[in-house]
Amino acid sequence: MGLLVVGSVAIDSVETPFGKVKDALGGSATYISIAASYFTVPIRLVGVVGGDFPKEHVRLLEDRQIDLDGLQVVKDGKTFRWGGRYHYDLNVRDTLYTDLNVFEKFNPVIPEGFKKSAYVCLGNIDPVLQLQVLESLNKPRLVVGDTMNYWIESKPRELAKTLKAMDMLVLNESEARLLTNEPNLIKAAKKIIAMGPKIIIIKKGEHGALLVTLETIFSAPAYPLENIYDPTGAGDTFAGGLIGWLARTDDLSGENLKRAVIYGSTLASFCVEKFSVDGLKDLTYLQIQDRYRSFMQLSRFDER
Amino acid sequence: MGLLVVGSVAIDSVETPFGKVKDALGGSATYISIAASYFTVPIRLVGVVGGDFPKEHVRLLEDRQIDLDGLQVVKDGKTFRWGGRYHYDLNVRDTLYTDLNVFEKFNPVIPEGFKKSAYVCLGNIDPVLQLQVLESLNKPRLVVGDTMNYWIESKPRELAKTLKAMDMLVLNESEARLLTNEPNLIKAAKKIIAMGPKIIIIKKGEHGALLVTLETIFSAPAYPLENIYDPTGAGDTFAGGLIGWLARTDDLSGENLKRAVIYGSTLASFCVEKFSVDGLKDLTYLQIQDRYRSFMQLSRFDER
Repeated sequence: MGLLVVGSVAIDSVETPFGKVKDALGGSATYISIAASYFTVPIRLVGVVGGDFPKEHVRLLEDRQIDLDGLQVVKDGKTFRWGGRYHYDLNVRDTLYTDLNVFEKFNPVIPEGFKKSAYVCLGNIDPVLQLQVLESLNKPRLVVGDTMNYWIESKPRELAKTLKAMDMLVLNESEARLLTNEPNLIKAAKKIIAMGPKIIIIKKGEHGALLVTLETIFSAPAYPLENIYDPTGAGDTFAGGLIGWLARTDDLSGENLKRAVIYGSTLASFCVEKFSVDGLKDLTYLQIQDRYRSFMQLSRFDER
Repeated sequence: MGLLVVGSVAIDSVETPFGKVKDALGGSATYISIAASYFTVPIRLVGVVGGDFPKEHVRLLEDRQIDLDGLQVVKDGKTFRWGGRYHYDLNVRDTLYTDLNVFEKFNPVIPEGFKKSAYVCLGNIDPVLQLQVLESLNKPRLVVGDTMNYWIESKPRELAKTLKAMDMLVLNESEARLLTNEPNLIKAAKKIIAMGPKIIIIKKGEHGALLVTLETIFSAPAYPLENIYDPTGAGDTFAGGLIGWLARTDDLSGENLKRAVIYGSTLASFCVEKFSVDGLKDLTYLQIQDRYRSFMQLSRFDER
């Protein structure tokens, strides 16, 4: 069936109080694809990089069996570069620079062989491009999308149109509140359901995630890590683990959506334990299963 | 065995975007006692009010089988009064006034008949008074305490001494971070364990609660309410439900602590559905059990 991932591929430089990394692999499509690759193959990545994109990054993606036929390379351009610095409280970060470079004119052309992908994950790009991608596809079974404050504020009408074409929206709590002008997250989720996507996942960082559909509300904890080295990419990794699991199982029941949220949380917990994609690139399926079971321990209680 | 509750008894006036209430029953000892009264009797309340304290409030407490032998009445004084206004985002509130009145000179004298209470819950009062109470007691089985930013900042040494005498500390996430100067909540909890109390409960409001001991970490969700009318007292109600359940079962095992956290969350969820103590005063045990089971639904997922 295949999973199509569209989004940014970037070169990140990140500092946290616990270390730093320079010119590391980053970008939403990167994190989504690597996380999903533990559950399903092939992953079909559509993105754009410049001639400066390091070969080792290409090799890492290929090693995870990510099909790069849709990765455009603009030879005389530079790759999207982002630099950020996290505070001691990792919830606070400063963006040092955002050089869009070739990503500024990104036109996500979907290769013919990718158009029948049953599962689609749209990273946080312009909603106009998200819709353009969806219109070129051949009836996907599930379309999951992300968005961000910038698009909510600058392209509300375009975003509204794109939302109608999504089955699931994954966004963080401040985005959910901004999109709906509603502080109560459950009400906010239901307002978003009325806008189009029938499955809403609200990411709450260190507080876990909420899954809301018309039938189900599920509250997932975050994994209680004492040592978080780099939160970059955690949200995209969450989305990747989630859709990867759904693509693997091809089961959109409420119970399986819950499992998918926990698998997303599981992958995100590995992501933040190291810099860039280092926490994600060499996992074993056994490690993932072990941590999934730790999540059960973490939130389980019984009757009495 | 009995449960001793020491704290404030107040007259609150509260406005939220969804309504308001004037001269309503409030105070930490009030919320803790009423919540706990669904699980165990007698509840022994120690607090202070003025001659203006309405008879109907006394009646309400007595109807919940709360023993008021320790409620001092300063005939020519006025009861502690608090006024607050919540914003549309209920996480934000303005305090309109805090008139301590008779509570300013509160000296919590424990009646002889209360000194053998096996379970003790100390609401958020001066840590010097908390310790004074504990020193007058006859070996309680479990001492649960609360504190707040004000005491953490103004009486750090006194608080440190009192913490050594507590078995369990219930505090909110900003207090945990302030007390330990540690943004990571798991690390913060472990730092607090090193200060004295071996069981730490971090309240996270709409994000639920964390239970941390040296052996267990448990993440409890918040109940996904769409209509919250008044968050006042939710934290104290949580503590009351929690210690009430522990006193009822007299079981301090990890599994039972988890249940206690969920019972605390259950009572808190009823609290915020109405103004003042209106959501708490007429519950049935069946309603409580039903909501406890809803909490199971909310966070349960299975293996696959």
